[in-house]
Amino acid sequence: MIIQLALDRMTIEEAIDMGNKVRDYVDCIEVGTSLIKEFGVESIRRIRKAFPKKIILADVKTFDNAKYEFNMCFEAGADIATVIGAAPKVSIDICMQVAKEYNKKVMIDLLNTSEEQIAEISQYKDAIFCLHVSKDVQEAKGVKQKAGEIVISNKLSKIDNIKLALAGGIDLNFVKDLDKNAYIVIVGSAITKADNPETSAKNIYEESRKFSN
Amino acid sequence: MIIQLALDRMTIEEAIDMGNKVRDYVDCIEVGTSLIKEFGVESIRRIRKAFPKKIILADVKTFDNAKYEFNMCFEAGADIATVIGAAPKVSIDICMQVAKEYNKKVMIDLLNTSEEQIAEISQYKDAIFCLHVSKDVQEAKGVKQKAGEIVISNKLSKIDNIKLALAGGIDLNFVKDLDKNAYIVIVGSAITKADNPETSAKNIYEESRKFSN
Repeated sequence: MIIQLALDRMTIEEAIDMGNKVRDYVDCIEVGTSLIKEFGVESIRRIRKAFPKKIILADVKTFDNAKYEFNMCFEAGADIATVIGAAPKVSIDICMQVAKEYNKKVMIDLLNTSEEQIAEISQYKDAIFCLHVSKDVQEAKGVKQKAGEIVISNKLSKIDNIKLALAGGIDLNFVKDLDKNAYIVIVGSAITKADNPETSAKNIYEESRKFSN
Repeated sequence: MIIQLALDRMTIEEAIDMGNKVRDYVDCIEVGTSLIKEFGVESIRRIRKAFPKKIILADVKTFDNAKYEFNMCFEAGADIATVIGAAPKVSIDICMQVAKEYNKKVMIDLLNTSEEQIAEISQYKDAIFCLHVSKDVQEAKGVKQKAGEIVISNKLSKIDNIKLALAGGIDLNFVKDLDKNAYIVIVGSAITKADNPETSAKNIYEESRKFSN
């Protein structure tokens, strides 16, 4: 299980500081959508440079103009870039092609992606599929995602060795309750907003080691 | 009819230069998604400053984290910001609320938005609804959008005085063929990639004056 630290709604300097605090307990550092939209590709470049040995994910949330955006992320040093599952299939196709050329990975964010769209994109055996309860949806409902309530589309559950990522309000209890391995578990505010981010990250990381990588 | 100049895949300086070349023939300047993702919110701030009298649209393509992104765009000086119609409805709700607080506008990009989703969001009488043939879809099909082929969802056509925007490969011929007014017509490469952007913009602008504002 890869623990991915999502860094959002902060400056690049704060993101690097936070990453440094918890670097021993995260495998992957996510340059959040808000960092990319607020500070541009420089956010990816600087976080790549600050963490040369970590997996770097650029949460660019591509919906169109796929070649330009994916080239940009990979040239800036990202190992994984994200595309929205609800985007036109042709854009997701392009993301997969560009990632292949760079020998990098695509994460498809399934937020608000219909079963019909999932059926279309379930052909991408090399992609990472992210089951995502969005920030806005969580806040509107006022509840946290629970490990026992994860629903995996039938289309996806048929894929052998599928690489699943889980995102949205994930904390230590979520990882404790998790009874199946996931390829990536994405943690944001449970670490970044904790009184002690290092302790929080350490606890989540150690709990996650019950699963093999 | 508002003519909106879409600026994409260039530096902020090039965008400002292009805007200056054609400033007499465009009503609205769009800070394209690629500028925002490549250079951050600074792109909106600088283009706002360079064109104080134009309508400025930030094509931020929000899909989540709506409050943060819309605050960011409006604080940077945008008059209109975009949200993806295929996003969770709760995020679109938030965009509408934030825009109301700022007395600004929301453009909902209907690219890949299902009829079911359109039915849900057709309640937003104050929004601008953008019928968008995406760059990736255009290039995959190898054909240009034609004015005669625009399909307006039944749900939208029932809205009185709906504010429609049209986007995707629009050029002079498109505007010539257009037999109904639209609130906004978005033009990108037909101006920015023209041998003479000023002439191209002038021709499109003059053709568009056949419609009242």
